Amino acid sequence: MKGLFITFEGPDGSGKSTQIKKMANLLETKRLPYILTREPGGTRISDKIREIILDPEHNELTEETEILLYASSRAQHVQEKIIPALNNGKIVLCDRFMDASIAYQGYGLGKDLQTIKSINQFASQGLEPDRTYFIDVTPETGRKRMVKRAGGSHDLDRIELREKSYHQRVREGFMTIYHENSNRICYIDGEKDLNQVFDTIVNDFFAYYSHQDKI
Amino acid sequence: MKGLFITFEGPDGSGKSTQIKKMANLLETKRLPYILTREPGGTRISDKIREIILDPEHNELTEETEILLYASSRAQHVQEKIIPALNNGKIVLCDRFMDASIAYQGYGLGKDLQTIKSINQFASQGLEPDRTYFIDVTPETGRKRMVKRAGGSHDLDRIELREKSYHQRVREGFMTIYHENSNRICYIDGEKDLNQVFDTIVNDFFAYYSHQDKI
Repeated sequence: MKGLFITFEGPDGSGKSTQIKKMANLLETKRLPYILTREPGGTRISDKIREIILDPEHNELTEETEILLYASSRAQHVQEKIIPALNNGKIVLCDRFMDASIAYQGYGLGKDLQTIKSINQFASQGLEPDRTYFIDVTPETGRKRMVKRAGGSHDLDRIELREKSYHQRVREGFMTIYHENSNRICYIDGEKDLNQVFDTIVNDFFAYYSHQDKI
Repeated sequence: MKGLFITFEGPDGSGKSTQIKKMANLLETKRLPYILTREPGGTRISDKIREIILDPEHNELTEETEILLYASSRAQHVQEKIIPALNNGKIVLCDRFMDASIAYQGYGLGKDLQTIKSINQFASQGLEPDRTYFIDVTPETGRKRMVKRAGGSHDLDRIELREKSYHQRVREGFMTIYHENSNRICYIDGEKDLNQVFDTIVNDFFAYYSHQDKI
């Protein structure tokens, strides 16, 4: 595959969706071929799966169902959208990928990490990001930003509504994943100003990009 | 668990849905506590997942997505409906379960059997049927009955529309599963007359049932 697979990870409210859009705009102005996508979702079928996962009325949705639905959505997304774009030499900017499953489902829900990894390995058919930006914020900052964005806590989705200790475990999970994959993952302090965060990402990305001979 | 978990398996057009309904009616007249359910589906969330799987417009749905969606649907069904019914001492009659995943996805699609089994083991949390009726018909008979039922081949769903060699592999898969689990699975010749088939199932079921001390 000739393209570059770049993922943005971090807790809810870390600002990763804002940052990934800014990155997409920058690639646009530089006329670099890219696609911007997200998980769960990214294709017609994955978006239907996303609706089932995030519907706040689905209180009865079990943890195992949630894990398998995320994996289903990823399987479709990888094969239908990500792999073809990489084969076409594009930079794929993806809002969340496998690290999120391990952080949210493995660490957050306390499920067996090896099982989560092997289900997701099956879903992604072994595809791994080339570079990942992990934007870290405290659960307090994350929650504050989410509530602000939603215009009140009643508009948060099913995952966002989980208790603070869950979001704390997710953050610690991301930190562990970062330490285990520091070759691939670039740590970004998401408490900083939005433009400072973006500068850090851009500097790393172009340093990384300039050393790639596959694009 | 105090109840009995009874599954009906077989290729499309084997008549298992007719037989399971007749069995439900019989349990009703005998005032035995039961529920009748099916896979994929059986709960609000599983039914939404079922719609995504079977929609004939979803040509782009990948095999990995299909496998994971079936498993998601099962995870929800087992925890929300089957286990609670068994805990209440009910007979659970289920139209398709794990054997179908192994036959259709493992043997039919040619996917690694061990992977299919472990994903589904995770989904069902290790729950296995107490007794399974495998109703066997040739792909020719199955296809003929499906087309007749649908009032023409244009109304078949995404799985039913697959080529004959696929349905042949599925049937052979069911036979292999039967031979590996002949303690649990009762073989029924589905080419026979509907009432003969039903008699065979009823005779086995009540012989089996009378030896259960857990109900």
